[in-house]
Amino acid sequence: MKKKKIYEGKTKKLYECEDEAELVQEFKDDAVASSKAKSHSVKGKGALNCQISAQVFRFLDSYHIPNHFIRELSDKEMLVKKLAMIPVVVMVRNVAAGSLVKRYGIAEGRELECPIIEYYLKDDERDDPMINEDHIISFGHATSEEIKEMHRMASKINAVLRAFFRRRDLKLVDIRLEFGRLHGKILLADELSLNTCRIQDLQHMDHGILDGDNKHIQDLLYEIRDRIFLS
Amino acid sequence: MKKKKIYEGKTKKLYECEDEAELVQEFKDDAVASSKAKSHSVKGKGALNCQISAQVFRFLDSYHIPNHFIRELSDKEMLVKKLAMIPVVVMVRNVAAGSLVKRYGIAEGRELECPIIEYYLKDDERDDPMINEDHIISFGHATSEEIKEMHRMASKINAVLRAFFRRRDLKLVDIRLEFGRLHGKILLADELSLNTCRIQDLQHMDHGILDGDNKHIQDLLYEIRDRIFLS
Repeated sequence: MKKKKIYEGKTKKLYECEDEAELVQEFKDDAVASSKAKSHSVKGKGALNCQISAQVFRFLDSYHIPNHFIRELSDKEMLVKKLAMIPVVVMVRNVAAGSLVKRYGIAEGRELECPIIEYYLKDDERDDPMINEDHIISFGHATSEEIKEMHRMASKINAVLRAFFRRRDLKLVDIRLEFGRLHGKILLADELSLNTCRIQDLQHMDHGILDGDNKHIQDLLYEIRDRIFLS
Repeated sequence: MKKKKIYEGKTKKLYECEDEAELVQEFKDDAVASSKAKSHSVKGKGALNCQISAQVFRFLDSYHIPNHFIRELSDKEMLVKKLAMIPVVVMVRNVAAGSLVKRYGIAEGRELECPIIEYYLKDDERDDPMINEDHIISFGHATSEEIKEMHRMASKINAVLRAFFRRRDLKLVDIRLEFGRLHGKILLADELSLNTCRIQDLQHMDHGILDGDNKHIQDLLYEIRDRIFLS
């Protein structure tokens, strides 16, 4: 079914299919949180993040949030719709972590009264610099209407997933989202997994905020996966 | 008239007055563009930027743009209203320069179709990181309404000053603005001079974009001042 590889990133590969409107998204075992961290492989991580991603996309489907997921193909591959990707990362934050701590000196773990939404330009060479709506429009990456739609969708996805994680004794710290266009509509793309969500385990608050840099994440991967799969 | 010094920055000092509702703003001779550049003194620069600032504030008055300027006191001092300052820099860009070039690789001198407005947190220790509306609200620096008002005022100030400079054969490349509160109203504060505006001399386009780092700026200071004072 897979044909030419058209993309390989830190956590995923994308392949063309027989059907030109679809792609195969394959999850890699590399464990990388930040773009600067050295990547190291964790056996089974690709499959685990593929399963979590599929589960979360199905959950968002049930809330009528349009996304690129079609179906799972194997333990680490999913079939997705081919979109014209918008080179912007939409980051939604509920708790201070990562660059919010480094850049502004906010205490890690501080609850934010309202979610903060940030935009980053996907640009490896420049280390994904932060941008705003005016930049996105000026650089021609999306229209004002598309940005408003991504913002609305990001808010809704965050609200829905916060509740989803909360019911599983997990707190959604922040989430990075990517979007693309199909027939003039904006769809959620990329993955929704432990590569793109920071979480806190409310049953083990002492473990801190879990991302690729956290030393407890390896032990907790399967436990968290199992909790995500609880209905 | 001047009493205690309450602030000293790279280009200005602020003093308290007899009247507690007012401050004396004194312009220094230090020539500094970016916060990282080493400062060096240029005799007469303080006076020149004080005069330009006063002239531009008076011009904005005539467009009913509320600001802190009261009157000139000497060649390098002006009396201003004491405001509760908002620790945010509002940057309006018409032409790519400075951090827009460095951060996103946009070609220097590229005309922007629409002005880009950016917000920066005033935080010397962290080198004034870029922020967005959500951060400003979350960190408690201004309300959503105040941000909208600063945005509206910044757009208007930019439009009015672009035309003002254009009539004097000068192009306004970008401008950094600071605002404060007085009796629940937002007023433009700080200075409006060659310390805070980047310009291009349309009579000498080969000189490039003029800011503190530009080698031609010393020769052109008085010529530009004289043109700004043309009615």
